[in-house]
Amino acid sequence: MIIIMEKTATEGNIQSVIDILQEHGFRAILHRGAVHTVIDALGDKTTLSTQRLEAMDGVGQVKLVREPFRLASRDRKSEDTVIEFENGVKIGGGNRPVLMVGPCSVEENYDGLLQVAVAAKEMGCQFLRGGAFKPRTSPYDFDGLGERGLELLAQAKKDTGLLIVTELMDSADLELVEKYVDVIQIGARNMQNFKLLKAVGHSNKPIILKRGPASTIREFLLAAEHIMYNGNEKVILCERGIRSFDSDYTRNVLDIAAIPVIKKYSHLPIIVDPSHGTGQRYLIEPMAKAGLVAGADGVMVEVHYNPSQALSDGKQSLSIPQFKEVFSRINNIIDVLHLEKTAPAPIE
Amino acid sequence: MIIIMEKTATEGNIQSVIDILQEHGFRAILHRGAVHTVIDALGDKTTLSTQRLEAMDGVGQVKLVREPFRLASRDRKSEDTVIEFENGVKIGGGNRPVLMVGPCSVEENYDGLLQVAVAAKEMGCQFLRGGAFKPRTSPYDFDGLGERGLELLAQAKKDTGLLIVTELMDSADLELVEKYVDVIQIGARNMQNFKLLKAVGHSNKPIILKRGPASTIREFLLAAEHIMYNGNEKVILCERGIRSFDSDYTRNVLDIAAIPVIKKYSHLPIIVDPSHGTGQRYLIEPMAKAGLVAGADGVMVEVHYNPSQALSDGKQSLSIPQFKEVFSRINNIIDVLHLEKTAPAPIE
Amino acid sequence: MIIIMEKTATEGNIQSVIDILQEHGFRAILHRGAVHTVIDALGDKTTLSTQRLEAMDGVGQVKLVREPFRLASRDRKSEDTVIEFENGVKIGGGNRPVLMVGPCSVEENYDGLLQVAVAAKEMGCQFLRGGAFKPRTSPYDFDGLGERGLELLAQAKKDTGLLIVTELMDSADLELVEKYVDVIQIGARNMQNFKLLKAVGHSNKPIILKRGPASTIREFLLAAEHIMYNGNEKVILCERGIRSFDSDYTRNVLDIAAIPVIKKYSHLPIIVDPSHGTGQRYLIEPMAKAGLVAGADGVMVEVHYNPSQALSDGKQSLSIPQFKEVFSRINNIIDVLHLEKTAPAPIE
Amino acid sequence: MIIIMEKTATEGNIQSVIDILQEHGFRAILHRGAVHTVIDALGDKTTLSTQRLEAMDGVGQVKLVREPFRLASRDRKSEDTVIEFENGVKIGGGNRPVLMVGPCSVEENYDGLLQVAVAAKEMGCQFLRGGAFKPRTSPYDFDGLGERGLELLAQAKKDTGLLIVTELMDSADLELVEKYVDVIQIGARNMQNFKLLKAVGHSNKPIILKRGPASTIREFLLAAEHIMYNGNEKVILCERGIRSFDSDYTRNVLDIAAIPVIKKYSHLPIIVDPSHGTGQRYLIEPMAKAGLVAGADGVMVEVHYNPSQALSDGKQSLSIPQFKEVFSRINNIIDVLHLEKTAPAPIE
Repeated sequence: MIIIMEKTATEGNIQSVIDILQEHGFRAILHRGAVHTVIDALGDKTTLSTQRLEAMDGVGQVKLVREPFRLASRDRKSEDTVIEFENGVKIGGGNRPVLMVGPCSVEENYDGLLQVAVAAKEMGCQFLRGGAFKPRTSPYDFDGLGERGLELLAQAKKDTGLLIVTELMDSADLELVEKYVDVIQIGARNMQNFKLLKAVGHSNKPIILKRGPASTIREFLLAAEHIMYNGNEKVILCERGIRSFDSDYTRNVLDIAAIPVIKKYSHLPIIVDPSHGTGQRYLIEPMAKAGLVAGADGVMVEVHYNPSQALSDGKQSLSIPQFKEVFSRINNIIDVLHLEKTAPAPIE
Repeated sequence: MIIIMEKTATEGNIQSVIDILQEHGFRAILHRGAVHTVIDALGDKTTLSTQRLEAMDGVGQVKLVREPFRLASRDRKSEDTVIEFENGVKIGGGNRPVLMVGPCSVEENYDGLLQVAVAAKEMGCQFLRGGAFKPRTSPYDFDGLGERGLELLAQAKKDTGLLIVTELMDSADLELVEKYVDVIQIGARNMQNFKLLKAVGHSNKPIILKRGPASTIREFLLAAEHIMYNGNEKVILCERGIRSFDSDYTRNVLDIAAIPVIKKYSHLPIIVDPSHGTGQRYLIEPMAKAGLVAGADGVMVEVHYNPSQALSDGKQSLSIPQFKEVFSRINNIIDVLHLEKTAPAPIE
Repeated sequence: MIIIMEKTATEGNIQSVIDILQEHGFRAILHRGAVHTVIDALGDKTTLSTQRLEAMDGVGQVKLVREPFRLASRDRKSEDTVIEFENGVKIGGGNRPVLMVGPCSVEENYDGLLQVAVAAKEMGCQFLRGGAFKPRTSPYDFDGLGERGLELLAQAKKDTGLLIVTELMDSADLELVEKYVDVIQIGARNMQNFKLLKAVGHSNKPIILKRGPASTIREFLLAAEHIMYNGNEKVILCERGIRSFDSDYTRNVLDIAAIPVIKKYSHLPIIVDPSHGTGQRYLIEPMAKAGLVAGADGVMVEVHYNPSQALSDGKQSLSIPQFKEVFSRINNIIDVLHLEKTAPAPIE
Repeated sequence: MIIIMEKTATEGNIQSVIDILQEHGFRAILHRGAVHTVIDALGDKTTLSTQRLEAMDGVGQVKLVREPFRLASRDRKSEDTVIEFENGVKIGGGNRPVLMVGPCSVEENYDGLLQVAVAAKEMGCQFLRGGAFKPRTSPYDFDGLGERGLELLAQAKKDTGLLIVTELMDSADLELVEKYVDVIQIGARNMQNFKLLKAVGHSNKPIILKRGPASTIREFLLAAEHIMYNGNEKVILCERGIRSFDSDYTRNVLDIAAIPVIKKYSHLPIIVDPSHGTGQRYLIEPMAKAGLVAGADGVMVEVHYNPSQALSDGKQSLSIPQFKEVFSRINNIIDVLHLEKTAPAPIE
């Protein structure tokens, strides 16, 4: 249950609501927004009627939240969350979808990274992504350059003006990562690493939260809830494919429908990652387009200056010439979708 | 292994190839196309070298087919299969995507069916779909009107000129169904009903083969192979969602990537069914668009004159006004995609 | 809702119940058993109270069936169904678990088949299984000997006294199969071939119904319901593994828990097939035992006189010496479980 | 590739092998066991022949490891790993299966915890399990008592002599947890939290590693490899159910076959958790037995002094009287299986 206070509500009104909630066994969480003051009431809603609350002074509306996620729920906040960066780039809320590209892992070849970043800039991308800390299924695989990788990313930012995205695996590295990057990514395998979610919940950087390969949409939104609950509402969801019984031709099944589902049930922005979502270079273009058409607020794609030599995920990375070709067509689709925005609203 | 004969090859040349294949334990299947004569050699390819065959008179090319499906394979036939109807409608091969709409089940209300058909015609659809024989998980559910349903569909064809699609569940009904309809659908639950596949393999009607909810893409193409092997090459594949661990918000996961995967590995046309693929009305539009952008040759959608009263699948059906609204936007996307066809080829 | 009439109920009493049900929009199905007369009322149970029905003359009990399957439900019939054969063999109801073994496909080598059958007899098996009609994912695979296979099975029955199990794929072959075999198997891929389920619903042979690889337990029981609804209550369920995301080491995931779940919700017997359930010879023994310990009423295992030469499924078949070794240990476990039957009932 | 040195090999022999491996681009890892000295060679095995290595002085055997996990592989170490505790309790290697029981979460009622512990002791259990730090899908759920929970567990150890198992979620808590408990559990959601795996790899406590709900067996063993690679070879695997498309009756599908598969490919002990594996109290007994019969080295079950009041997972917990009843029968099965150990070895 969510209690939205009137703009004119006094501190006394707010405290009275909190008091009555606590008397009835609810946990009351106060959110003071720029416009609204909202109280989340967590508990057994049969013990206290919404009418009783609505009759109290200063109470505007009382809304039932039908889903276990609350802060992430569209029921609580009907308008889209928009995340804005210092340089004016915005994600979500019907803004032009953003483009994030770069190598899976940052490698010891700054020139290669810079080539990718320059091409990205040229194609209108706003973000450079690259892994400095890599989660690896096997301990024998390359696991990233660590801080050296972050330095190379920061240099690329300096040289191109692109915003930087990188994955954080350990809360111990949070401060370090915050120093270098603009967006912190939580990888799919860590989607339910609740300690890590809590840690980034205390950060003021936007967070890209990747869907776990066997996570339901509800669990995905509850993972976002962990971050938001700890104070950071700047969560960007990322659909990157789920496990299925069929891995003959693709690594995962990219759940495109998750995008409009999440748009319906949550106000958070969502982007799509067709590289991990399919594991196949030739599927990046159609699946990026499919995600955008279905409503994604951005695309994240792996691009490497020399995919055949990549230390990780070469098979699913585009080379720079391929990237330019594919993204010129992706930009076309985005142009078309943007024109279409004047059309009537979709079916509920 | 596939042996493509030269245009100038004689009957003697062809027979010699068949003879040598049989000597080496292969089963040889002769296909005489309008342009090419092709011999499929099924057997252990280590026993006979391609060079040996290529050296024979009249042999043009010898190709290894890397997949267990052969007739359905892009290796065998590089150009897209196009299925053409008497009225000039074409499916596949870069033709404008086709639109198939109609109720899940045909019901005893011809006026309702006609309203859907008239609206379909108006929105540029080419096909009316409706079930006369319905597979039902429970024996207590409505299982269709049988021949009466076929008659109503035939009447709607007469009144609107739309081509008719209906599902066949039993080979015993094949002749009956052939009499009334233009395209025979094999439902998802029957995708591996090999007797039924064999039966429609002997039909000369085009077949829509729906992907089984737990079938891999390879099994899907092998099911098509059963039909083609029995003589009917007019197979239209249909992606309609697969089972996953998450059914909180959608009935199935619509595997959009299956469309470009199948385009790469097979020459057969493929359409997308977002109604069954998601089970949710509000997902029809984004998922139809996603399928089209990813390369689908058509869309199949459930439309009912009164979804809340439908005897089956009402929740995933559009009403007629919703249908018109959604399909005007779907037609827009199709227009755009058609313009885009002049762009360079996608990444391999 | 199920109405169980008293033994002393008159025809008039029965008709009155049917009348009132129909008046309230229910479909009433009358079952006259040896002991009980039962009326299944299918419809909206809010329109008629159970008290109203219980007050009627001749009505014994009125029970709500909580699951969509009714005839198969434990709510309807609390005691286990026991299926008995002419030679006294019984399946279900706490009888000693039965053993069914034999080759995947019957091949043109009667001596090989007989060797398996003789060994089966020696090890206490009651059933010889073997496929004459084989469903094959690819049209290029061996699909069985047809009637010749049935003849060979019948000969083996004559020579050993074993009961015969074979798969039926096409209702057109039902009469033929009924002539030769004691139990008809419906394969996993045909679990939702409703025409076939209906056909065997009219047979008086016991039916082994295999769980579809992507079927939920509820769908599995609804498939059984299709058979029972058409008149044949002698259904033996068979758990044979479901699809998962992991096929590195096993073909399917054998869902052992489905056995006690089905025992709780249905009165039908259930057997376990560790050969198809795992696809690996070395897993047959532990998984057969696991199934038995979890409550299975029997085990079905593939045994071939020469697995390395088998025309199908050799990798998951036991050779005759392996079979004897494994089944001596399986018989030991069965002995132990039988002794344990005197222990108190399990936790609800 | 693994090089096992002869017992008489000198330091010089060992160094020569390492040198030649490094020259050929391998990473060489030296393990000095009580009996054998083993060198793991990680790299491209085509660059150096096993014969070349076998010809070197002091080299006993050279073995190829066919799986991506090496230290966990049965190819490397054919005998079962046995983990022994100070009080003589042993896990693995054909020792009597161990029993671990206790509440999901430790709660603020020591008396309740003690009741469970006393009953556990009485029924022959060796371990008390209970969560002090709980991973929770929703941030609004109870997440454990933290150190206070560890103190209560330590008190129960003092009062009963049971060994203590608890979950670690954050490497920051490792030292704290090590102080109180005998076995550290890594939960399913953290199976690929590589930072945490690395941390416990540096611990000298035995680790119970739970299989992730969407992890393949190979990924499971690779997660164990992360721990072993960091120095801790005392890893106890735990099968606790995987995600499937069917959650009507069970929370997960308990993959019993994973037990004999892992026994074949790894030397590590494996236990089974039927509580999380099914989510249903009535399935604990049959699934515990199924796991034991299939070869599990132990069972972990949730027992609560008052399941209906449990702060987490009450539905899948046994009450104390149920526990006694169920475990008397589980002990019987263990007795039988132990007698059976003299039977010949299973089929390979």
